[in-house]
Amino acid sequence: MLKVIKIGGNVVDNPDKLTEFLSAFAGLNGPKILVHGGGKIATAISKALGIETTMIKGRRVTDAETIKVVTMVYAGLINKDIVNKLNARRCNAIGLCGADGKLIVSQRRSPIPVDYGFVGDPQDVNSQLLASLIEQGFTPVIAPITTDGNGTLLNTNADTVAQTIATAMAKHMDTELVFCFEKKGVLSDVEDENSVISAIDKNDFERLKADGTISDGMLPKIENAFNAIAGGVKKVVICSSDCVGEPGYGGTSITA
Amino acid sequence: MLKVIKIGGNVVDNPDKLTEFLSAFAGLNGPKILVHGGGKIATAISKALGIETTMIKGRRVTDAETIKVVTMVYAGLINKDIVNKLNARRCNAIGLCGADGKLIVSQRRSPIPVDYGFVGDPQDVNSQLLASLIEQGFTPVIAPITTDGNGTLLNTNADTVAQTIATAMAKHMDTELVFCFEKKGVLSDVEDENSVISAIDKNDFERLKADGTISDGMLPKIENAFNAIAGGVKKVVICSSDCVGEPGYGGTSITA
Repeated sequence: MLKVIKIGGNVVDNPDKLTEFLSAFAGLNGPKILVHGGGKIATAISKALGIETTMIKGRRVTDAETIKVVTMVYAGLINKDIVNKLNARRCNAIGLCGADGKLIVSQRRSPIPVDYGFVGDPQDVNSQLLASLIEQGFTPVIAPITTDGNGTLLNTNADTVAQTIATAMAKHMDTELVFCFEKKGVLSDVEDENSVISAIDKNDFERLKADGTISDGMLPKIENAFNAIAGGVKKVVICSSDCVGEPGYGGTSITA
Repeated sequence: MLKVIKIGGNVVDNPDKLTEFLSAFAGLNGPKILVHGGGKIATAISKALGIETTMIKGRRVTDAETIKVVTMVYAGLINKDIVNKLNARRCNAIGLCGADGKLIVSQRRSPIPVDYGFVGDPQDVNSQLLASLIEQGFTPVIAPITTDGNGTLLNTNADTVAQTIATAMAKHMDTELVFCFEKKGVLSDVEDENSVISAIDKNDFERLKADGTISDGMLPKIENAFNAIAGGVKKVVICSSDCVGEPGYGGTSITA
């Protein structure tokens, strides 16, 4: 079973947590792909470079200067740091962004009604490239910068990148998708870290949305998870990065 | 014949020159690898981030903060920009640094007599990875950041990276190495742009060193060229990036 594991800012921004996660990840048996998000480093570097960060409805606008910064930070600083640390743990990692070998070609998001700038939604994955690297024993490490295929780089949501890659790879081999985030899983009581819901199907999801148990940032994550299942991914888990390596990841399974 | 072409700061720092070069490079037939240097962008970003650039004997000291900046800029900003522009020109490029798949494992340079910090000299190339990518129709684009194999990234001279890669690839296939720089070739008269010496062998080199025609920065470039020839590279040319695409590159051939 191919594992596609996504980590976000809460791991990338925390050197100790990142090191702990990478050791666990390197120890996982079988073929695997790591997708990483960005974190606060890009914002700090933008600020230092005098680039103003514009937010609309809580989302960053990626202008011409900002796409340069996120490319540097995500595909350069973070990606190569992770690759290098994994290789020191005998993981045989190779770092890519969506522009490399046209790994992920995206459609730039329409500027209407809101212009988020250089932001794209994945349309096509070069799964042949990933399958070939995996067959040669490599672990692809993927930064969420994609391309429109015509020379423009696009900032892309890392959860969506992970889901798109898992779905594309599911055509080649049995694939599971793991979203790591700051909680142990989807909680029935946000105040209680141990109230992890072990499995959610579509009916559960509708009920949990209706009663307000699931809201805000968790909604698109779970929608991504259902998209992956619909696309042929065998298993999707939402869990904490601390639980990678544990059986079943101790998190929430999303089921059809 | 595999072409390994190296471009430096004079191309990378000049958007028009870079675009022109990439169009010519994309048009070259046959398998090819591009190695790029850094340029002034890293220095500008270091300055903006408040990192002091220390130079010893005209060479940059790569301290812990500087290796982060050059990794961001070389392996992120510049590498992905080049890859993306080549792919828009149907070149099928894939960007790597020396850490990816342990492509280039270096020995960190001794701190005695001068401590240049996180700087390394290539020891080993994963030529199998490059050969496999080339066989699949990819054009590797390589940033001069390497690894010690134990979790430390090292800044590495791009001419040396190009030479090391060409020499390693010469074991797999016939290989030529092209160093692009700001002149049309090695000049017999530095005041005359058209005084390109068409070929230099070892005897010529000794003579040209002795009479002062070749000095300073050109010395290590030509020594790298002779190392490549000694390592089995069929042909080494020193020329201007403007001449890539012309027969024989209109430059200086280095011969055994």
